[in-house]
Amino acid sequence: MNRVEPRTLSGFMELLPNEQILFNQMKEKIQKTYERFGFLPLDTPVIESAEVLLAKAGGETENQIYRFQKGDNDLALRFDLTVPLAKYVAKNYGNLSFPFRRYQIGKVYRGERAQKGRYREFYQCDIDIIGDGELDLINDAEIPSIIYTLFKELGFNDFTIKINNRKILNGLFESINQKDNSTEILRIIDKIEKIGKDAVIEELKKLNVKDEQINKIISFIEITGSSDEKIEKLENLGITNETYLKGINELKTVVQNVRLFGVPDSNFMVDLTIARGLDYYTGTVYETFLNKYRELGSVCSGGRYENLAEYYTDKSLPGVGISIGLTRFFYKLNELNIIKADRKSISDVLIIPVVEDLKEPIKLAADLRKIGVNTEVYLNDKKLKAKLKYADKLQIPYTIIIGEDEIKSNKIKVKNMETGESIETELSAEKIKEII
Amino acid sequence: MNRVEPRTLSGFMELLPNEQILFNQMKEKIQKTYERFGFLPLDTPVIESAEVLLAKAGGETENQIYRFQKGDNDLALRFDLTVPLAKYVAKNYGNLSFPFRRYQIGKVYRGERAQKGRYREFYQCDIDIIGDGELDLINDAEIPSIIYTLFKELGFNDFTIKINNRKILNGLFESINQKDNSTEILRIIDKIEKIGKDAVIEELKKLNVKDEQINKIISFIEITGSSDEKIEKLENLGITNETYLKGINELKTVVQNVRLFGVPDSNFMVDLTIARGLDYYTGTVYETFLNKYRELGSVCSGGRYENLAEYYTDKSLPGVGISIGLTRFFYKLNELNIIKADRKSISDVLIIPVVEDLKEPIKLAADLRKIGVNTEVYLNDKKLKAKLKYADKLQIPYTIIIGEDEIKSNKIKVKNMETGESIETELSAEKIKEII
Repeated sequence: MNRVEPRTLSGFMELLPNEQILFNQMKEKIQKTYERFGFLPLDTPVIESAEVLLAKAGGETENQIYRFQKGDNDLALRFDLTVPLAKYVAKNYGNLSFPFRRYQIGKVYRGERAQKGRYREFYQCDIDIIGDGELDLINDAEIPSIIYTLFKELGFNDFTIKINNRKILNGLFESINQKDNSTEILRIIDKIEKIGKDAVIEELKKLNVKDEQINKIISFIEITGSSDEKIEKLENLGITNETYLKGINELKTVVQNVRLFGVPDSNFMVDLTIARGLDYYTGTVYETFLNKYRELGSVCSGGRYENLAEYYTDKSLPGVGISIGLTRFFYKLNELNIIKADRKSISDVLIIPVVEDLKEPIKLAADLRKIGVNTEVYLNDKKLKAKLKYADKLQIPYTIIIGEDEIKSNKIKVKNMETGESIETELSAEKIKEII
Repeated sequence: MNRVEPRTLSGFMELLPNEQILFNQMKEKIQKTYERFGFLPLDTPVIESAEVLLAKAGGETENQIYRFQKGDNDLALRFDLTVPLAKYVAKNYGNLSFPFRRYQIGKVYRGERAQKGRYREFYQCDIDIIGDGELDLINDAEIPSIIYTLFKELGFNDFTIKINNRKILNGLFESINQKDNSTEILRIIDKIEKIGKDAVIEELKKLNVKDEQINKIISFIEITGSSDEKIEKLENLGITNETYLKGINELKTVVQNVRLFGVPDSNFMVDLTIARGLDYYTGTVYETFLNKYRELGSVCSGGRYENLAEYYTDKSLPGVGISIGLTRFFYKLNELNIIKADRKSISDVLIIPVVEDLKEPIKLAADLRKIGVNTEVYLNDKKLKAKLKYADKLQIPYTIIIGEDEIKSNKIKVKNMETGESIETELSAEKIKEII
């Protein structure tokens, strides 16, 4: 037989079971947290009509997209979860209640140049709150509290949610007559952490921004201090541009309310350099950093946008949302040994029968499952040594050997496979659950 | 602006939130049940190299596949979860423990002709047990116990798991010199429920099967009685073919052990007409029917195969597994009103603040979430009437209005939105949880 090499495409994550268990645990924590905050689940198709998916797209995105024909249809794979959301809300507008709070966790596709830690198929975990015509600013303050709760839930403490407002930046550029360049300038500023101040100045010069204007930009993004001090300094810069002032007011309100939502100042701060490259954000923007691992970049980002679905509907649908790129995040956490995939089995208990009649071992397994214990019975006819080797290799936390003696005496030993310790108890699911 | 119509492709399921909640509940029950039995999670890519994915495929499958170029790569979307499993086990053989028990729940893609209830993107929910070189027959008996537990968990009682063994059928055909036609004959027999006996005879005649042989086939598949009676009648047919006799022995053992695994005879039976069209099954085969809704066809099917991954490796990897086509199953259950998507919100509680300072409402929400209650705070500045309308429309089970009075008196009313009844209690998450 001609055999094909069993390979997985580069840029596609495929995990071993122990890693997959850990990945799923993280994914489930994200899902449960989103649900705790009342976000509704959504699951849109991976394939959409290319016309629908690319209604807005352009530039880099369009080059990366997986697009193909099937029959007469021009199809594409979704490259994010925001465009499908826009389509969904426009399509189902009459059937939804606003503010529409939805989460979606799913795979998206981008045919990027393959490199370490860059994925062509990856999970995004998104939430968005969409208003019908309007959406109060208080929603912008709830978002950081969700990020805060989530990262705590994921086991992190030392992280910072950075908050800014695009109106401040846009107003600044208007005030120095650089409005037309603002998208480009924002992209450059956004890189200051990565490339440094001098490189930013170089890039701004290439854009033909005058020295005087560059000085203003730099002195602006170099404003330091606590969140409140930064806001005060912004107010005292003497800029009277209306957008700028509106941005400061929004930022001030958001910061006050973020505290109200229980996020401590140690976990969030105003950062005036945060701009988010994407040009559809129009107000509050967020990025989240693990302080000890700045090299990960932002692990949870998003912001406020004026209009979600203008390419599909004339309804005004302002919103605010965030996204976590889980596949890359997981890869990095794993690579840096921040997380450890030490669980190789999904079973809590392995029952090893050393008896002809399997009735009792099978009954015990069924009883354990009923009270929520993941339980496996070693069914194959092997020597005891081989059975124990299986438990060892899979690192199943507890094993229970059941033979004639155990059944007769109604006593079994629950062996903790990590410590090697055995505890004797009754042959009863409830008693066993107490031990494990 | 030129707007694009926000449409979803035909053959792709996209649910409203209430339906999505129900769909996810079913999906989660399937996942949890698989985990209870110790199956490890897997999540392979949706896109694979076409060469890998089509190593075995042919005929109908190959025509339906989504296949496309990206750069120099010839790619395809997975059309089931079995081929990716075969690739995975062959690729990671050295890193897995056998028997390898894995589940995978994910979307697969088939470009079928679009018609009602037929999906081009649909979820499969698979489990498989893969042996290294050998896999004891007892595993074939555990599978029905998993189906049984799962369908009970999904709320069904009146269902039948039908069991057969392909060796019996193959042996029968050998004994009447129709071995070369066996795949074709199996396909025809498999349709007897759908097309009836006469049509089956007609189709067999077209295959040039002689009348005498047809009579043997028909009298075989018309064997009636209880599971044990059928097996006895098979033994007494006087067929001495070795494969046939081996099949009877396997079936007998499986039936005895299925009972041992706690599946009552009211939920399983031997059915000699079950063959499963696919030609890679080599032993036990399963189909599952909801007795009141036979029109759904089999809702959970599978069987034993000799060798999972022969196209990728020379290792012998026998296995047994089942699959649920969840998307179509859900569609049918919904269409026949067997399930009802009556939950429109994921929140258990909506807190409605009618107070300037949101501190107390937000604190209560955080406390409720901490003890596992999905809670939403109505944040937008609307009239009370609009806030209540939101709760009504989303059918959030409980609402709590918090104003100055409630905060001062430390007493709130928890309103059951279905009954309209209000219960007064303390402004405390624990007390509220007791009520809901």
